[in-house]
Amino acid sequence: MNTETADEIIAATYRALCEHGYADLTMQCIADESSMTTAAIHYHFDTKKELLNAFLQHIIDQFEQQLPHDASDPRERLASFLTTIFTPASTREDDFPIALMELKAQAPYQEIYRERLHDMDEKMQAIVTSAVRDGIDAGYFDDADPEMVARFVVTSINGGHVREVALAEDPNETRQMIETYLELQLGWTPEVVA
Amino acid sequence: MNTETADEIIAATYRALCEHGYADLTMQCIADESSMTTAAIHYHFDTKKELLNAFLQHIIDQFEQQLPHDASDPRERLASFLTTIFTPASTREDDFPIALMELKAQAPYQEIYRERLHDMDEKMQAIVTSAVRDGIDAGYFDDADPEMVARFVVTSINGGHVREVALAEDPNETRQMIETYLELQLGWTPEVVA
Repeated sequence: MNTETADEIIAATYRALCEHGYADLTMQCIADESSMTTAAIHYHFDTKKELLNAFLQHIIDQFEQQLPHDASDPRERLASFLTTIFTPASTREDDFPIALMELKAQAPYQEIYRERLHDMDEKMQAIVTSAVRDGIDAGYFDDADPEMVARFVVTSINGGHVREVALAEDPNETRQMIETYLELQLGWTPEVVA
Repeated sequence: MNTETADEIIAATYRALCEHGYADLTMQCIADESSMTTAAIHYHFDTKKELLNAFLQHIIDQFEQQLPHDASDPRERLASFLTTIFTPASTREDDFPIALMELKAQAPYQEIYRERLHDMDEKMQAIVTSAVRDGIDAGYFDDADPEMVARFVVTSINGGHVREVALAEDPNETRQMIETYLELQLGWTPEVVA
């Protein structure tokens, strides 16, 4: 499949997920959001599960691309990570967080979703761990266990996602809470950089 | 409806949810787990939504009953809260956390579930806020913002729930993380009481 076709199917999946949610997502909904027929989509993806696996992989790749990989300042890496998580350009004002929560709730039944969610989780933890470790080494942050700080931040992000979906809470509540925690734990908040 | 009938329907709903998950839950599944017919269950609850609202209310009531309300020592109240959250007697080794996550993912579509989840959230926040405030006043805990500490603990519990369901992670990982946070923030961990 060429990149353009893949991109079109992924973009249509995104829109169809936001519109219908996971439970009511069909190949027909996805076709309706694209210029393709269901037969053409089925040619590339046998099942909804296969398509959603590719979709989750795409979300992870996109997330990685948004992060500044070679920023030398670990404070900038950590601040940029939080900005990427809390204001992903393409997902504000739509129902993607709801669809993603449905996929998380499906993970016990669909091993392939669980694998992708694990990948996402590991990437998030690795980014925070390395930024915190480098920041401590450079003397920007107070001493702490980088793995534990990363677990805090990533668990809070997970918690904020549930609260956004289940309670309709503003995700910025969670962002502020994480910043308060980083101030307490590292003696640093993202504002310090600005 | 007498209490015995209500209890039987609620208990059957619990078993049916663990067995089939939310999406595949039908009145027939619930009847199969009880000594009642679907007609008898329908007589008490018109819809699955009504039944699940009553079920969520029951879970909240049960949770409240498990907590020691009149413990005078705020350290004991906070420790007991964490024990109740992380080892609810009736839900270990079954799939209730998965079913509850499906209900959370349904909250955007079912206002009545959202209301019950809000009730649950408020109760958790109130318990932690009051224990932290009393513990600070009594000189057991370092000074802190009780509302912020409660937000941390409850958001982490939400995050741990997603991680348990989506990533099959042991919830004790989250419990340890919360204890580490309480040590940092309040200069106290539940072990200190024991």
